[in-house]
Amino acid sequence: MAPLALVFDAYGTLYDVHAVVARCEEFWPGRGAELSLLWRTKQLEYTWQRSLMRRYAPFSQVTLEALQYACAGLGLPLEGYQSAALLQEYRRLAVFPEVAGALARFATRKAILSNGSPDMLDPLVKQSGLAFDAVLSVDALKLFKPAPEVYQLAVDRLGVVKEAIGFVSSNCWDALGAKAFGFRVWWINRLQAPVDALGLQPDAVVGSLDEILL
Amino acid sequence: MAPLALVFDAYGTLYDVHAVVARCEEFWPGRGAELSLLWRTKQLEYTWQRSLMRRYAPFSQVTLEALQYACAGLGLPLEGYQSAALLQEYRRLAVFPEVAGALARFATRKAILSNGSPDMLDPLVKQSGLAFDAVLSVDALKLFKPAPEVYQLAVDRLGVVKEAIGFVSSNCWDALGAKAFGFRVWWINRLQAPVDALGLQPDAVVGSLDEILL
Repeated sequence: MAPLALVFDAYGTLYDVHAVVARCEEFWPGRGAELSLLWRTKQLEYTWQRSLMRRYAPFSQVTLEALQYACAGLGLPLEGYQSAALLQEYRRLAVFPEVAGALARFATRKAILSNGSPDMLDPLVKQSGLAFDAVLSVDALKLFKPAPEVYQLAVDRLGVVKEAIGFVSSNCWDALGAKAFGFRVWWINRLQAPVDALGLQPDAVVGSLDEILL
Repeated sequence: MAPLALVFDAYGTLYDVHAVVARCEEFWPGRGAELSLLWRTKQLEYTWQRSLMRRYAPFSQVTLEALQYACAGLGLPLEGYQSAALLQEYRRLAVFPEVAGALARFATRKAILSNGSPDMLDPLVKQSGLAFDAVLSVDALKLFKPAPEVYQLAVDRLGVVKEAIGFVSSNCWDALGAKAFGFRVWWINRLQAPVDALGLQPDAVVGSLDEILL
C-alpha cells in the first residue's frame, strides 16, 4: 500500500550537520574532522549505552558530554563558550538542498521522529521553516533509537498503522531499526556506505529525498 | 566489604586482541590498523543496536558481520579463508602478561562475564589454561552488555549479592554499566583513555590487574 504518512529522521536526513564540523575546524584548526568523527561516534554510543543501562539523558546533554569526552580523548582544550557555540549550531542547521521541494511534493502526512530532545529539535525545526504534522522526540519515552518503542511512538501519535508508514533516514542502523519494527523504509545513503550488516535490508536505498517514489 | 567474588570481562581485559590486529595487517598490508578499528567499532555498535532492536545474534555472528561490513566499507576484498582465520584468532588470544599471576593471588571466587558466545569463549578459556569458578556468556540471555540483566546473571550464577561482587573490565562503558548495576568496579585503563562521560565513575582506575587491591 502507498504510505499514508512519511516519518523522517532529522540529523543527517533533513538537516545537514556540516556546519558543526566547520565550527570544530574553526576552533581547533587541523583537528576538526577528527574531532567531529569521534564526537559523533561517542554521541551515538552514549545513546545506545544509556538506553541499555536505563540511564536516559536528553540528547542535548548526551551531545555535550560526548563533545567533552572527544576533546579530552584528543587532548584538545574545550572552553564553555566553545561547547555553547557548537550546541547552538545544532539548533540552526541548514536543510539539505532538495528537502523543501521534496516535502512539498509528498501528499501524505509528514512527521519528524528524532533522538533530539525538544530543547534542540524544536528551535531547529522552527528556524528551518519546514512544516510537519508532528515533531516527535524520543524524549517522551526516555529511550533512544533503535528501540521498537520509539517507532511505535509515531504509530501512536499519528494514528496510522505501521504498515502504512514510510520511514526515511540517512542513518542505516535507524532505517534498519524501523524496518525491524515494521515500517516501509527508505535509506538515504548520502555517503555511499555499505548497508549495515544487521540481517535486514531497507526497502529502498536512494541518494536523496528526490528519489523517493510513493 | 571486601569482594567475595571477582568477575572479569574477557576481551581486552584478560585476553589481548593484538593478534587479531596483526593478522589484519598481514592480510591487508598498510590497512590493518584502520580495518581493526572499524571492525571493533562496528562489532560493539551491532551488539548495542541488536540488543535495542531485540534482534540478538551470537557474538561470533556479530563479529563476522562487523568484519564483512568493515571490509566493504574500506573497499578491501574479504575471502572466506580470511574471515575464518580471523575468527579463529579470537579463540586463541594471548593472556596479558600479569593476568595469571594476579588471578592466583586473588583468594575470592573468580568468574568471566563476557559478550562472547560459547563457541568463541569456551575454546579461548580452555586453551589459555586459566581457571575460573564460572565462565558466563550473555548468550544465556540473548542480550548484550551493558544491560543490567547481564550483570544480574553473575549474581544469579555465583549466588553472591551484588554488593559483594567486584567487577573488572578494560572497557570503560562496561565498567560503568556494572557500576550502574551496583557492583564495585575496577576499570583497567590499558590505553590511557578518559573516563566515558556517562555520569558515573569507576570505583578505581588502574593500569593492570596487578594494581587491584582487595
